Amino acid sequence: MAHKKTQDDGKIWGGRFSEGTNAFVERFTASISFDKRLYQHDIDGSIAHAKMLAKGGIITDIEESEILAGLEDIRKEIADDNFEWSVKLEDIHMNIESALTKKIGEIGKKLHTGRSRNDQIATDIRLYARDQLDQISNIITLVQRNLLDLAERESNTIIPGFTHLQVAQPITFGHHMMAWFEMLNRDFERFQDCRKRLNRSPLGSAALAGTTFPIDRQYTADLLGFDSPIPNSLDAVSDRDFIIEIAAAGSLLMTHLSRFSEEIVLWTSAQFNFIELPDEYCTGSSIMPQKKNPDVPELVRGKSGRVLGHLVSLITLMKSQPLDYNKDNQEDKEPLFDLIDTIKDCLYAYSQIIPAIKCNKISMRLSATKGFSTATDLADYIVKKGLAFRDAHEIVGKTVAYAIREGIDLAEIPLDKFSEFSPLIEDDVFKVLTLEGSVNARSHFGGTAPNQVLTSIEIARSNLEMR
Amino acid sequence: MAHKKTQDDGKIWGGRFSEGTNAFVERFTASISFDKRLYQHDIDGSIAHAKMLAKGGIITDIEESEILAGLEDIRKEIADDNFEWSVKLEDIHMNIESALTKKIGEIGKKLHTGRSRNDQIATDIRLYARDQLDQISNIITLVQRNLLDLAERESNTIIPGFTHLQVAQPITFGHHMMAWFEMLNRDFERFQDCRKRLNRSPLGSAALAGTTFPIDRQYTADLLGFDSPIPNSLDAVSDRDFIIEIAAAGSLLMTHLSRFSEEIVLWTSAQFNFIELPDEYCTGSSIMPQKKNPDVPELVRGKSGRVLGHLVSLITLMKSQPLDYNKDNQEDKEPLFDLIDTIKDCLYAYSQIIPAIKCNKISMRLSATKGFSTATDLADYIVKKGLAFRDAHEIVGKTVAYAIREGIDLAEIPLDKFSEFSPLIEDDVFKVLTLEGSVNARSHFGGTAPNQVLTSIEIARSNLEMR
Amino acid sequence: MAHKKTQDDGKIWGGRFSEGTNAFVERFTASISFDKRLYQHDIDGSIAHAKMLAKGGIITDIEESEILAGLEDIRKEIADDNFEWSVKLEDIHMNIESALTKKIGEIGKKLHTGRSRNDQIATDIRLYARDQLDQISNIITLVQRNLLDLAERESNTIIPGFTHLQVAQPITFGHHMMAWFEMLNRDFERFQDCRKRLNRSPLGSAALAGTTFPIDRQYTADLLGFDSPIPNSLDAVSDRDFIIEIAAAGSLLMTHLSRFSEEIVLWTSAQFNFIELPDEYCTGSSIMPQKKNPDVPELVRGKSGRVLGHLVSLITLMKSQPLDYNKDNQEDKEPLFDLIDTIKDCLYAYSQIIPAIKCNKISMRLSATKGFSTATDLADYIVKKGLAFRDAHEIVGKTVAYAIREGIDLAEIPLDKFSEFSPLIEDDVFKVLTLEGSVNARSHFGGTAPNQVLTSIEIARSNLEMR
Amino acid sequence: MAHKKTQDDGKIWGGRFSEGTNAFVERFTASISFDKRLYQHDIDGSIAHAKMLAKGGIITDIEESEILAGLEDIRKEIADDNFEWSVKLEDIHMNIESALTKKIGEIGKKLHTGRSRNDQIATDIRLYARDQLDQISNIITLVQRNLLDLAERESNTIIPGFTHLQVAQPITFGHHMMAWFEMLNRDFERFQDCRKRLNRSPLGSAALAGTTFPIDRQYTADLLGFDSPIPNSLDAVSDRDFIIEIAAAGSLLMTHLSRFSEEIVLWTSAQFNFIELPDEYCTGSSIMPQKKNPDVPELVRGKSGRVLGHLVSLITLMKSQPLDYNKDNQEDKEPLFDLIDTIKDCLYAYSQIIPAIKCNKISMRLSATKGFSTATDLADYIVKKGLAFRDAHEIVGKTVAYAIREGIDLAEIPLDKFSEFSPLIEDDVFKVLTLEGSVNARSHFGGTAPNQVLTSIEIARSNLEMR
Repeated sequence: MAHKKTQDDGKIWGGRFSEGTNAFVERFTASISFDKRLYQHDIDGSIAHAKMLAKGGIITDIEESEILAGLEDIRKEIADDNFEWSVKLEDIHMNIESALTKKIGEIGKKLHTGRSRNDQIATDIRLYARDQLDQISNIITLVQRNLLDLAERESNTIIPGFTHLQVAQPITFGHHMMAWFEMLNRDFERFQDCRKRLNRSPLGSAALAGTTFPIDRQYTADLLGFDSPIPNSLDAVSDRDFIIEIAAAGSLLMTHLSRFSEEIVLWTSAQFNFIELPDEYCTGSSIMPQKKNPDVPELVRGKSGRVLGHLVSLITLMKSQPLDYNKDNQEDKEPLFDLIDTIKDCLYAYSQIIPAIKCNKISMRLSATKGFSTATDLADYIVKKGLAFRDAHEIVGKTVAYAIREGIDLAEIPLDKFSEFSPLIEDDVFKVLTLEGSVNARSHFGGTAPNQVLTSIEIARSNLEMR
Repeated sequence: MAHKKTQDDGKIWGGRFSEGTNAFVERFTASISFDKRLYQHDIDGSIAHAKMLAKGGIITDIEESEILAGLEDIRKEIADDNFEWSVKLEDIHMNIESALTKKIGEIGKKLHTGRSRNDQIATDIRLYARDQLDQISNIITLVQRNLLDLAERESNTIIPGFTHLQVAQPITFGHHMMAWFEMLNRDFERFQDCRKRLNRSPLGSAALAGTTFPIDRQYTADLLGFDSPIPNSLDAVSDRDFIIEIAAAGSLLMTHLSRFSEEIVLWTSAQFNFIELPDEYCTGSSIMPQKKNPDVPELVRGKSGRVLGHLVSLITLMKSQPLDYNKDNQEDKEPLFDLIDTIKDCLYAYSQIIPAIKCNKISMRLSATKGFSTATDLADYIVKKGLAFRDAHEIVGKTVAYAIREGIDLAEIPLDKFSEFSPLIEDDVFKVLTLEGSVNARSHFGGTAPNQVLTSIEIARSNLEMR
Repeated sequence: MAHKKTQDDGKIWGGRFSEGTNAFVERFTASISFDKRLYQHDIDGSIAHAKMLAKGGIITDIEESEILAGLEDIRKEIADDNFEWSVKLEDIHMNIESALTKKIGEIGKKLHTGRSRNDQIATDIRLYARDQLDQISNIITLVQRNLLDLAERESNTIIPGFTHLQVAQPITFGHHMMAWFEMLNRDFERFQDCRKRLNRSPLGSAALAGTTFPIDRQYTADLLGFDSPIPNSLDAVSDRDFIIEIAAAGSLLMTHLSRFSEEIVLWTSAQFNFIELPDEYCTGSSIMPQKKNPDVPELVRGKSGRVLGHLVSLITLMKSQPLDYNKDNQEDKEPLFDLIDTIKDCLYAYSQIIPAIKCNKISMRLSATKGFSTATDLADYIVKKGLAFRDAHEIVGKTVAYAIREGIDLAEIPLDKFSEFSPLIEDDVFKVLTLEGSVNARSHFGGTAPNQVLTSIEIARSNLEMR
Repeated sequence: MAHKKTQDDGKIWGGRFSEGTNAFVERFTASISFDKRLYQHDIDGSIAHAKMLAKGGIITDIEESEILAGLEDIRKEIADDNFEWSVKLEDIHMNIESALTKKIGEIGKKLHTGRSRNDQIATDIRLYARDQLDQISNIITLVQRNLLDLAERESNTIIPGFTHLQVAQPITFGHHMMAWFEMLNRDFERFQDCRKRLNRSPLGSAALAGTTFPIDRQYTADLLGFDSPIPNSLDAVSDRDFIIEIAAAGSLLMTHLSRFSEEIVLWTSAQFNFIELPDEYCTGSSIMPQKKNPDVPELVRGKSGRVLGHLVSLITLMKSQPLDYNKDNQEDKEPLFDLIDTIKDCLYAYSQIIPAIKCNKISMRLSATKGFSTATDLADYIVKKGLAFRDAHEIVGKTVAYAIREGIDLAEIPLDKFSEFSPLIEDDVFKVLTLEGSVNARSHFGGTAPNQVLTSIEIARSNLEMR
């Protein structure tokens, strides 16, 4: 019998459940502790709804004015932290509606006409998520801008290109940064695609079947900046695809950031020593002041798991739910909120880190020199002189093996030795074997040559302008 | 000591590793057992590459002709199952290249000029995935067409709408089917969005930095039907976003199908008894011939976990990988292949099931009648007579409580009793309390009224036409 | 261009990053907002460490006394909410150590001798997790006790046993509850297994390599109730297996609870109508007072995704981390805390729901009667009279088909008709065809017969006693 | 309109569905393509069942003999690949039973008496999984033995210990290997724990409720080597916990292997250059013969995602399934089979790699020398002379800062300079500052000192002996 046991329930369960059944269930089922974050959007949605009710003659213009004024008062109270939240009132909707009725009396009871909490919460989350996507998109753009600046600054800087973490070919650091840029470009696109599907209005779907009041869903959709009303009321109140899509796009984005982070952790290690990070993004140790732990990139790398976890949680949440609204769906908010906060923080961190990256060019160059990184250039050279690719490969293989045995670099092989391996190799080979020769030779669209990198940067800049 | 142990390695490890180290490593690292599925696309890619080499004068026109003819021969041999695969040659690329050189001699060795297996495999998977996305899109459209037909057929059929699996309000079965339609519509959109990002050409990126040959990436992109070349060679060979995106869109699609399946399992239970499935999609029991197990929907429901698993596997695969190509990436293919097969099978199953669904209308209607499903209609009725929404709610609460005590339905309450609860209730209330009255009254865009459902179907049909 | 853009950064990013770089990094990297939860265990660990330092003569007895007194003061201050937390001090360790030094002066600076935050945090989490596992184990036991009582109460109550949600054979409700009991039994075992591996002491491993001070790891392990010190210091500070194991055991537990929840949602639907839940665990609707939404089970079902999400997050977090401590690991705490809270709440909810379940026995029985649920009994009957199993099956198939055509139940088929299907069927068949006959006949270990269920309950009770 | 469309279904769907509905459903629902792997265990289970039927007089001894002989014939036919599998017969059970009846006639039809496919498949998978767990346990032991040998061989070899991938303190390579050993030790324990819960017999639970035949579940459990029969028949046929548990233990194991792999990839990079791998576990490049890509570790790292994916798939599969058997469960086998194969392969790969690791001791040592890795030793030294830990820390911080400015190592600081930082520093400090001094000083249980490592190895060896 391994675990401790006592007679006192408080001890047994850590006092968590001393609250009594009703209070427990209230706490367990209430969402106000987290959905209060939606207050701006709940009020915006209510205002649009009230305007529509007035336009359709379901409430009077005077009632509309009172409701709008009351809601704006409440908005201010909440913003000023002068609002009293109640767990008994369960959620953001009832907290606000109840405050409204307290404030403006009977008229407040009319606000919920032709509406249900089911379409109300669906509207709130969409409005919230849209705002957040726009903020995320803006930070992505900022990170991309900073990448372009860095890539431009280091368009000539040579760094080894790795495959299998083994030196493969020399590339330019600017080219490498542009690979990061491209990843973020797709992330941006994905959030925009997601926004299309998110920006549709569920308002007017009521509990699940629509309402018997003569509502105007197009009007509320317009007021709230939605592209259109959602075509099916059942779908409108049960759909959480857009949350899962944000989580999926977010997981991909975080996967990219985890890859950047891995590289930064590698590059700042004493063994690589390729870059230096600004002190603010590292922690030292009181005892080892030379130690600069890349804490921020490490945390970002770790947080990629967090966002993936939320994605899994959300998909599992929806699995096998019959239509229409089920209480399970309340579990959609906390992962959404947390993943959005996480993504914004991690992007912001990179927006600050990138401009501050300092390249240790000598160290990078030294690494690129090792490992016969221009062997492919030699092979291409021989092919251009007339040999078939696979045969050229074989010759280079033998040449490199020779260089290893001799402990010298390719460029150090004397021409007459080269000729032994292939008579096609002539004096002009040595230009091909330099790092600059190698990167400059890859001068086609998408290649690592500095001029190509600069062209890519230019195109990218003008694309960002058009966002 | 719980587990069995023997001296004989074969026994200890089930004979799996009797192969010797080299054979083990060969098997462990080779991909030919699964990537042979890509042969069509590998050959298509090689043909485009050869044409580009010829156009650029890197090979002669005669060499081009021989290579093309050789590749087409190989394509035929593989299609006819006359091709000898070799694990020693590791992958699809080397199997085909080696066969080509055997077939056409030295010229075959020139095909790989200006190319690497890194950009070759990236090209192959994109071509394969594009084909598969198109097939998936087509099957989605088929399922949607069948849903429209079913929704039209049952646009007047009444079924209870549930929240929390409790009867909430009557809806039409056509309306319910249109909710399924909408889910698939978003799935279709997502696959199209994914296709945009997928349909870009990595060819010409070579190992990671581009090549020193004067290649024309736009030309190969055009030949292969890609929208454009990928702007950065490092990104082009390491990017697997499109696979993850397919997995994410597929997971959402499967989540939808799991929800359809859950409903079908419920509806075919003796307790619900809402629909009947065609025999072919069920299994019986030799001993209980009346038993019709909804095997196909159950399997589809189960397979939603399978696709989510692949999504997780792929994101975890890419997490923290430094650029550029790492061998880990070989693990991208099996999940992709399996999830595509799974999605196609499950969609196809639904394309066949949907037209064959038979509604037990009496049973559906009976369920909708129970549970005071028109209570909301009564509340709306009172509001329209002038009471505030929350006050009307309270009155209906009391009325229903009375009906429960009396064991009668709302429509069975005599008018004078109604008047006791509210003098606003008059003779016209009874029309409001019928199922037909209820559904017909929800006649705005997206509402459950049969005329709205028919309008939605019409719009949807013309949208499908424009695909 | 779909997303909004403004010049004002506050607007663009929602004001999140107005804090300035240093404050941002401080907030981003600090853990005090969540690790303060560990204060009891941090103090317990420090006390054990101080005692060991004194015992080994590394600090004096007087220093020990002052440190202990200071720590107990701090413990009280935190418990009384009189402690001032500082984000600048990053984490729980530095907050407490700093307060100690403020309180007792120079001596406080000696506490950290021979220790590092790496082994300190590892110790804290293990102590915390152990307490929580014990609490979870106790609540599991409570739920199991309540299940035994319910199973005993309803050991004779007949309910249909389903496969594929189709009625298969009659079973007893007590038997069904004992299946739930068994699932929880394995959950209990798993948490106990997990506890073994968790209850080992990392203290004394220091940063990663151990320390140069003459520490006594066995002594601190004993003081803290650990079974033994962890044998390798590198492993001790980097191991987070126990957290993942808790998450895995928790995911399985939540999967079980999701299955219970699904059944409860089904059983409380109007269509099944098998049980009634106490009002406190449902929410009604102000307008439909008869509606009892099973909110609590639905939420529990939804929360199963949440715990699985944390499991995925934690495994992904650890994937590919090189030894030894990396900052990524800070991401282990929030998922752990949240999953523990979630598990405890969900178990507690079930501990309260189970005793309050009311069976609608008539409804259950009626469902069991339908669907020829005793067809297997008829087949077994014929086999016992001498026919082979597969042949008996065939005969029963024909008999049931006849009953369906006639619209009668098996027990309503007249004997002479039975004889037509098989001469082996005699007068004693009718006893076999009753629900009671069916369940009573399955009277072997683990079978559904009431007497077997009662035996199982008895065994289970005495097993629980031995915990 | 982005995707292609043709009139020809074969083209649209890639010919996948040309098979016709019945053949499609047959293929979609059949499991024989993968569950044939269970044939040994299916036959073992049937033999035990037949023996029990005979013992209980339910079949005669002659019938038993014929059944046993028939089953052994079939076993041989399958082993010799002389067995004709049929998709029409759906699964392994019906394929074998049908062959048996063909072979021995009517008697074959009696085998299934008192049994159902539900308890049969549950028995089969448990027997299969038990065998596989034992094999996995054996390979883990092999890897551990090889680790002990390597750790012993390199117990004195110095390598830097990293935190945040920054050099922290010198450790011994043997110590590092023992951290890997400990991880595998927990993996072994977890599989053993899992085995306890797995090794219980579902046989006799029939469809879900038990059977009316006088079966002896203890007897079949004994014959099959199960520890006991499962106490509840409903639970017995629906429980898949053991599969999820294997997947969870497997995911943790693979997480460990991903960490080993990450380290090996780092250590074999030109920048670290700590170890060399045997050629067989790398691939070179025909063009860069010096390049040794660590393909096998990379693949293992990638495969950690694969196993996590299966875990997620399995938990999601079971989420919300009502009791009892549902067809969804058929989806449990493919992930189980694949994850077991994956785990065995990856472990086997490591069992071969580990003995072949060659340490570049000079390179390791050089790295450990850099980065003031003995700064902690200096601080401990000062504390031992009487200063408080935090004060000593401050002094060392200043000393290191000085060394950085001067571009010298700690050991190169002259004594009089040391005295300026603290008068407590005396001549004996220089011993403390050596790498050997540092590792030898950490000589307590679990510390990195070579003598401690050797002690750990000895203990570990004797523990392995007792398995």
